[in-house]
This record gives sequence, C-alpha cells and structure tokens, in this order.
Amino acid sequence: MAAHGKQFTLFASLGPNPWKVTALLHELGMENSYEIVYLNQLKGETKDESHTKYNPNGRVPTLIDHSNGDFVVWESGAILEYLVEKYDTKRKVSFEKLEEKIQAQQYLFFQTSGQGPYFGQALWFWKFHSEKLPSAVERYTKEMERIISVVDKILEGKDYLVGNKFSYADISFLVWWPVVDWMSSEVTELQGWREKYPNVSRWDIAIQKRPAIAAALKERDAYRAQ
Amino acid sequence: MAAHGKQFTLFASLGPNPWKVTALLHELGMENSYEIVYLNQLKGETKDESHTKYNPNGRVPTLIDHSNGDFVVWESGAILEYLVEKYDTKRKVSFEKLEEKIQAQQYLFFQTSGQGPYFGQALWFWKFHSEKLPSAVERYTKEMERIISVVDKILEGKDYLVGNKFSYADISFLVWWPVVDWMSSEVTELQGWREKYPNVSRWDIAIQKRPAIAAALKERDAYRAQ
Repeated sequence: MAAHGKQFTLFASLGPNPWKVTALLHELGMENSYEIVYLNQLKGETKDESHTKYNPNGRVPTLIDHSNGDFVVWESGAILEYLVEKYDTKRKVSFEKLEEKIQAQQYLFFQTSGQGPYFGQALWFWKFHSEKLPSAVERYTKEMERIISVVDKILEGKDYLVGNKFSYADISFLVWWPVVDWMSSEVTELQGWREKYPNVSRWDIAIQKRPAIAAALKERDAYRAQ
Repeated sequence: MAAHGKQFTLFASLGPNPWKVTALLHELGMENSYEIVYLNQLKGETKDESHTKYNPNGRVPTLIDHSNGDFVVWESGAILEYLVEKYDTKRKVSFEKLEEKIQAQQYLFFQTSGQGPYFGQALWFWKFHSEKLPSAVERYTKEMERIISVVDKILEGKDYLVGNKFSYADISFLVWWPVVDWMSSEVTELQGWREKYPNVSRWDIAIQKRPAIAAALKERDAYRAQ
C-alpha cells in the first residue's frame, strides 16, 4: 500500500491523455480511489527517474494498482483496458462479447494512433516548434480535419461508437477535442468545425454533460490551474 | 464466404503495418487462410470506396473474417488482438493471465502510438515532404532515437517483451525497424544504431530468424516487388 492510502497512484500532467483515466474512474464510481502525482511535463518531470522507474517511456499517464501487488501499467489505452477488464465486471461502460470488445479496441487504437498523435503534432507545429513551418502546420491541420471527418462519418445515425452504448471507447476521444477548439481560434481551416461536423459535436456535448465526466473534467481543470 | 474461398480477406499495401498481421497468421499456422488485396497507397487506393466501405479511416490493414459473419476489424493493433483472442486459444504467442495480457497490450499501444507514428513522421519529412525542413527532420529523428533507446532499455536482460515468451507484442515492433535501417544510410544520427542499441538488434535478428516470420517477410517482399 502506498503512503497516501488510496488504491491507485496515477501519474498525470497538463496534457490530454491522463484525463481519460480519471474520466473512466469517475464513470466506474471509483472517483475516490486514486492519488494523482501531477508532473510538469514542460519542465521535463515526466522524464525524471522517479517516474521512469515505473514507465521507461517517460510519458503519462502511468497507473500503479496498489491493491494488485503494485501492478504498473502505462499507455492510456492499456490503462483503460486494464481498468475495464478488472473493475468493470458489470460491464457498465465495456463489453462482454468478443466482437464488441474488439470494436472498442479498434476505436481505442484509432484514438491513440490517429487522433492523439496527429492532433498532438498539429498543436506542436502551430504553437511550440522552434520556427514557423507553414507546410508542416498545413500537413497536420489537414490530417486533423480528415480524422474529425472520419469520426463524424462513423457517428452518422449513432449515439455512441460501439453497440449503441456509452463506453470507454467514447471516453478515449473526449480529451482531445479542446485542442481543436483552441486551434480553431486561429487556424482558418478549423473555424466552424463543430458546425461542419455535427455528429462529433452532438456526441462530445452529450458526453461532457454526463455528471461523472463533468466532475472528472472539473478535477482536471483544477490541476491545470495550479 | 468470399469468392476467393479463403477464411480472411486482408487489405494491405507497401507500408509496414499490414505485415504484422501476416506475420502473426504465419506464427499461428494460418498462412494459407487469407487472401491479400494489395492496394497502392501512393495512388490513393486505400481511400477508395471499395476499401472505405469496410474501413472509414481508409488506412490499412483491414481484415474481414468470412468465417465469423464477415466480421470486419481495422487498426493493426485491434486486428492482432482479435486474432489472438479468437484463434490463439492455445496461447502460443499470447497470454491467459490478465496482467500479462495487459502488458502485451501496453506494448502494442506503445508500438502503435509511439514507434509507428513517429517513425512514420521521420520518414515523411526525410523523404516525402514537399520541401526540406531540417528542424522537422531533426524533431522526428530525435524522437525515433529516443523510442529505440526506450525499447533497448526494456529489453535489457530479456529475450522478449512480456513473460519471457515470444508473443504478438514482439511481432508488432518488427515491421518498423527496416525504416531505421533505410534512414540510417543518410541520417548521421542514426548511423550505427544497431551497435548502439544491441538489445533491440539481438531481439530483432532472433525474431527475423523464426521460420514463420521469415516466410511472412518473404511474402511481403514479393508483394512489394510487384
């Protein structure tokens, strides 16, 4: 057991990915089960040995489950899988049938290998790169819009990604839309994106209104305001 | 059943990811179970409606299992998960215990969200971008080397990623190392990478020597030579 007495230790930072994990834990009624270790990624704290001894990749989130022999898991997709397989035994936000499990994983892989990295690169070249590179910004803005359009198409006539049921697959996409909102304040091609892609918008707004999700995002915002 | 009479249809192209799937199928003794639809991604064929009607993201691989009601799954990570959960019931290259399953998934997410996208971006700015952007090439070459160093550290004193056993997690990384070999012919920072990261090298060479893997890579090379 950790000194803080909670079941989980969760390493997090201001980036989007750790807050998928807290959103899922809130949905599972486990919102009091974790202690957040909030690292400043801009100061390189995620690459500190105090974190990399658990996660050699030095990126967050990283989860330790003190109730399971201090089992360590990193990569947000794998953390979500671990939590639903071990703790969502009533399948509140996950699936029992193999085909639905695999569809949820398919969207999780699409989120973590598509939405996350490409939105992240768009943000990087728009805001943080050492010099202005318009053709790099254009590359990633286009890919960003392509991904939004794919998700919009998938959600045509559907409320949720898999099996007409809110699930952890929907949660995984949630935390990256604010990046589009932020960039759309300046990037012409992204302006009005919520009107242009109404299925994504409707879905995102419905998810944000869920009480558990709203509470998780409020907690995230409090950490970010520190 | 499809006209070709095989159990699976697999959409593939010259890029690395589809060949994870054929490597796994070879390891499972299912090397005669699939028909490859080889698309020319450079001509935009992966974005054709004949493919996007199965996979709205328009990227390969996409798998159809005709023996399971034409079940469709895309994203290479999800395809591997589907195949091991449904067809590796003897756990030849996968795991039964939850914690080991999750570790395999953790590495799969690291591969698909880290190695794949970043190696892909490095390759893009080195070879295919519309103009030379040295600071973009530098960004991704550095990230590429960082990821190689992380994998090398994970493999310190170990033959395989999870549970001292060759698994589909190891297979997932295999197809991207040739990109480093190719780039290292020109990119100074990557020269001698196999000597600098001996654990990755040793592991990669051992995997390539497995008869099933060698046969899968030979098949890939034959398609690429078309």
